[in-house]
Amino acid sequence: MKAPDTNHRVSYEALHRFTTRAFQNVGMSEIDAKTGADVLALTDAWGTFTHGTKSVRGYLKRLKAGGLRPKGKPHIAAQGPAWAIVDGDSSLGMVTSNFAMKTAIDKARNCGVAYVGVRNSCHYGAAGCYAWQAAREGFVGLSMANDIPTVAAPGSREAITGSNPISYAIPAGRYRAIMLDMSVATVAGGKVYAARTRGEKIPDNWLLDGKGKPTVDPSGFPQVGALQPAAGHKGYGIALLIEALAGILTGASITWKVGSWMLDDATKHTDHGAAFIAIDLAAMMPADQFLRRTEGLVDEIHNAPRAEGSSRIYVPGEMEWERYDRSMQEGIALPPDVASSLKEAAEMSGLSLKGELNIDL
Amino acid sequence: MKAPDTNHRVSYEALHRFTTRAFQNVGMSEIDAKTGADVLALTDAWGTFTHGTKSVRGYLKRLKAGGLRPKGKPHIAAQGPAWAIVDGDSSLGMVTSNFAMKTAIDKARNCGVAYVGVRNSCHYGAAGCYAWQAAREGFVGLSMANDIPTVAAPGSREAITGSNPISYAIPAGRYRAIMLDMSVATVAGGKVYAARTRGEKIPDNWLLDGKGKPTVDPSGFPQVGALQPAAGHKGYGIALLIEALAGILTGASITWKVGSWMLDDATKHTDHGAAFIAIDLAAMMPADQFLRRTEGLVDEIHNAPRAEGSSRIYVPGEMEWERYDRSMQEGIALPPDVASSLKEAAEMSGLSLKGELNIDL
Repeated sequence: MKAPDTNHRVSYEALHRFTTRAFQNVGMSEIDAKTGADVLALTDAWGTFTHGTKSVRGYLKRLKAGGLRPKGKPHIAAQGPAWAIVDGDSSLGMVTSNFAMKTAIDKARNCGVAYVGVRNSCHYGAAGCYAWQAAREGFVGLSMANDIPTVAAPGSREAITGSNPISYAIPAGRYRAIMLDMSVATVAGGKVYAARTRGEKIPDNWLLDGKGKPTVDPSGFPQVGALQPAAGHKGYGIALLIEALAGILTGASITWKVGSWMLDDATKHTDHGAAFIAIDLAAMMPADQFLRRTEGLVDEIHNAPRAEGSSRIYVPGEMEWERYDRSMQEGIALPPDVASSLKEAAEMSGLSLKGELNIDL
Repeated sequence: MKAPDTNHRVSYEALHRFTTRAFQNVGMSEIDAKTGADVLALTDAWGTFTHGTKSVRGYLKRLKAGGLRPKGKPHIAAQGPAWAIVDGDSSLGMVTSNFAMKTAIDKARNCGVAYVGVRNSCHYGAAGCYAWQAAREGFVGLSMANDIPTVAAPGSREAITGSNPISYAIPAGRYRAIMLDMSVATVAGGKVYAARTRGEKIPDNWLLDGKGKPTVDPSGFPQVGALQPAAGHKGYGIALLIEALAGILTGASITWKVGSWMLDDATKHTDHGAAFIAIDLAAMMPADQFLRRTEGLVDEIHNAPRAEGSSRIYVPGEMEWERYDRSMQEGIALPPDVASSLKEAAEMSGLSLKGELNIDL
């Protein structure tokens, strides 16, 4: 027997409208509110519910308290031909990040490649949204950000770096963009917490205990323990590159100086950093040639011999794009935790969850 | 009782001179031969013996057979303000890569950041050498290359991508550059092979067997089995980014079209691709400020609480730099396999190993 579906199905359009209105109702301009909704509804459409509209509640809290500025205006603080440093003015992370990647794309159009670093930002959601922003325009896009420390280094007892997400997107012609969005930890903290909730043991490469030793017991997390870096020194090393490009070079806060957008005083700025890179492939090679070559790589992967028991070899991003197509056809199936978070978001912004999304909680 | 030291201690200068002469004796110019020696002797000084002068024998074989061109001249095939595509003209990979990173640094000096892609190259040795080439000049440097497939994707039975090395180096003021040099596989094939030689079992995340299943038995490697990607889909995803930037975008060969520099017909070009990125941090922030911030991050890592049983938390590159200092003070302790490879290299280039390096084999 199949478990009853406890998800709430909403259309992309309704979720986008709800999110836009919620942001407008706490003082954001329509255009900025829509940018936030673009990013968060897209994230949910990809099925990445941990980083989508579930966070609206937390952003609203900061927008109302002043830690995020509803009327903040991200602007270029310094620039050269192929780079810029953007001061986010503590506006919504999605607004600042979208502005920064747009700046990178514009500069890459002239120079071939561009780097745009960001300071005075906040949680930016799913890194992949901004990489895709570039790929949608025909550019290779990279996006990365720092965050409060949650991930250990080899030999450390506690967290040293943030989970520091990094994403890329590569236009792939008749296929959807190849797209990776990863953190530098073995798994997300949410996965450890879910195992704790279910009373399950975890693999020994996910978490360190209070003494800095690998543990299969998640029962103390997150109060005790740090996430383990993916592939040990490799994940740790990538985390520090992100810290350098998104934090050190931008003038943003780094490691323990970054504020927690969820837990810290909502009147304070978190000063997250981020970095965006755009590469204009069409400057370097006829775009058609690049796309045919990329399609060839995808074909090769799809047709490669499969491991015993494997029915398919995925290209990065393929799962997200298939969920996206389903979301657009059948609606986005919001899990219960997202729906209840949206209920609070509705209350905080004077909206009716029932009226906007036909969800009755 | 301590095992007898079977390593051969040689000075950096002697090893550099030997390597330069070997390359000159097969027709390379003094300046190109020295560039090759710079990279390979540095790699040995770091203690990365798998990628240093041990490979000279293999390069000489190709230089003599024509697969590598002793008089090849890497040149810019196309360029814009912040990018270039370099045609390596099938010269030694170190010569092409050094030229490409120099081009990236020059362009980044004008534009803030630059990408230089490479085609018609060959094995480029340790990725870290070129990242460090940039950091030595005060730039953040990134270096990456593709290679023949040896690493599986999640769900594949066989190799899909190369071990695709990637490296970065970040200037760190009074500390040595922070420097990561990693492949996208969990471990290098050499490590699997060494376990096979010793008759040992391996962890189950290193290798797939002939059916594409994780195995602890390395006895069939490398004839049977593919390396597993580091952290599963993360290592695989990074491998494809490298394939795109070093291979697809440069016009180089990709995946199964790349030639094996060790095993394939030495008269044929391997057509490896590579990519180099330089970031002029001093354009974006006063260099002193960047360096003080980076030093602060290093201090924070050094002073962080250590896991039970851990005596130290390393910053990426620290181990290499400490070996480098020992190598420069006490000489480079070449392992027996490197010494015997150098013996063959000496024979191939009309040199005396005893005369040049005082190694009597």
